[in-house]
Amino acid sequence: MDIAAKITSRSNDTVKLCAALAASAAKRRETGLFILEGRRLCNEAYLSGTEIYLLLYTGEFYEKYKEYTERIAHCAESVYETTEDILKKISDTVTPQGIVCVCRRPKRAASEIRPHGFYIALENVSDPSNIGAISRSAAAFDYDGIILTKSSADAYSPKALRASMGALLRLPVIELESIEEILSVSSENGIASYAGVVSGEAARITDVDFSGGALIMVGNEGHGLSAAAVAGADRKIYIPMSEKTESLNAAAAASIMMWESRRRFLK
Amino acid sequence: MDIAAKITSRSNDTVKLCAALAASAAKRRETGLFILEGRRLCNEAYLSGTEIYLLLYTGEFYEKYKEYTERIAHCAESVYETTEDILKKISDTVTPQGIVCVCRRPKRAASEIRPHGFYIALENVSDPSNIGAISRSAAAFDYDGIILTKSSADAYSPKALRASMGALLRLPVIELESIEEILSVSSENGIASYAGVVSGEAARITDVDFSGGALIMVGNEGHGLSAAAVAGADRKIYIPMSEKTESLNAAAAASIMMWESRRRFLK
Repeated sequence: MDIAAKITSRSNDTVKLCAALAASAAKRRETGLFILEGRRLCNEAYLSGTEIYLLLYTGEFYEKYKEYTERIAHCAESVYETTEDILKKISDTVTPQGIVCVCRRPKRAASEIRPHGFYIALENVSDPSNIGAISRSAAAFDYDGIILTKSSADAYSPKALRASMGALLRLPVIELESIEEILSVSSENGIASYAGVVSGEAARITDVDFSGGALIMVGNEGHGLSAAAVAGADRKIYIPMSEKTESLNAAAAASIMMWESRRRFLK
Repeated sequence: MDIAAKITSRSNDTVKLCAALAASAAKRRETGLFILEGRRLCNEAYLSGTEIYLLLYTGEFYEKYKEYTERIAHCAESVYETTEDILKKISDTVTPQGIVCVCRRPKRAASEIRPHGFYIALENVSDPSNIGAISRSAAAFDYDGIILTKSSADAYSPKALRASMGALLRLPVIELESIEEILSVSSENGIASYAGVVSGEAARITDVDFSGGALIMVGNEGHGLSAAAVAGADRKIYIPMSEKTESLNAAAAASIMMWESRRRFLK
């Protein structure tokens, strides 16, 4: 490998860009970039073919994981060696892991949605850890993608990416304006839409035939799905529960609905 | 209601105790106390009959929720009015909600485990939000309790309690020394134990008959179940998944296993 440029100043523009990407969803949207930290996630970027704009690592990391680092560096547009201290300035975790990638956010359009596919739609989900956990379940249960309303938290935040263990890099992540737009695209693709509800007339989730594809909608942690989502759904479904409880954690509910829609088909 | 004593100094001993309980698991264990914040959780303490050692609220909160505050004050051993500033010192959330309860941790022993009951066992689970989410699913799916090894995060931390939406107050929470002890108590009560595994010889979770009760074990987020847990289980089970994925978030996996064990029995 060619000798990488070195960054030793905390006020370097690349360092500032990385710190801004770690901290700000607005900066991520504005630049179309996001940041990944640690050996595992950077490797997922490599494996998933995510475009790597920048790679930064410490000398210690390189010594320890030479082959690994060179493999990733080979795909990166720019490569820098830096120090632990500078990674600490960038990182939102307590112990930086010696390697950071800045990647280009894939441009995904509604037109990529597959007819009769399986999608999980997140309306106004606000906790990035939930988005991460949900995407992990979506990948595990062979879903075709995750669709978010713009009002949801950013799927490319460090917290969401970490919680996803890379699933957000492997799965198509499509952001659309509103739940109405999601429902309309889903319907155009012959995908039945499902709103999980806790009361009223709804089908027991175990009685639903999901074999023709599904768009399962999950709402905000505090307020659930909007009235528009519930009214626009092809079908309302419920997860049977103890009478003493009214709700599940958003990621748990999403995971159970996805599991239930695929449990007969998975090996 | 009698006029409550007022606390106006941040260096007051009660304030110091509350701040220590919010921040330190060691302090919670040492005193047998824990702290709850906000109207919803304090009400859950009241409804679940959790012993309330102290109640603190602001004057503004009292004016707004008089009846509510008096109902809780009636059950509390001591009641104090305080200021928003002092609650900020105590609180681990950004916006204190005007009310805080300090409660006595229920003393639960292994002898409370019900023969042929349904229990979720957490071995070395380290994220309090996962413990909260798991307990919420356990309550939703009519589980009889949650059993933790001492190496797991504290179920009475503010983060776990918040994520549980009160389920950790309603469900029996039993802490035992080790997974070996949990397995032994479970077996004495005629409860079959299940280890979720990702590979090797195991039963597909949809083929298991859970009708005679179950102890479902969940391991650490990073390392999974210990070898002792897997070896000691009556049965190894797996959740079928896409070949491209090896794992689920711990709370998602726990929720799906609990759901699967009860899906035929829930209304």
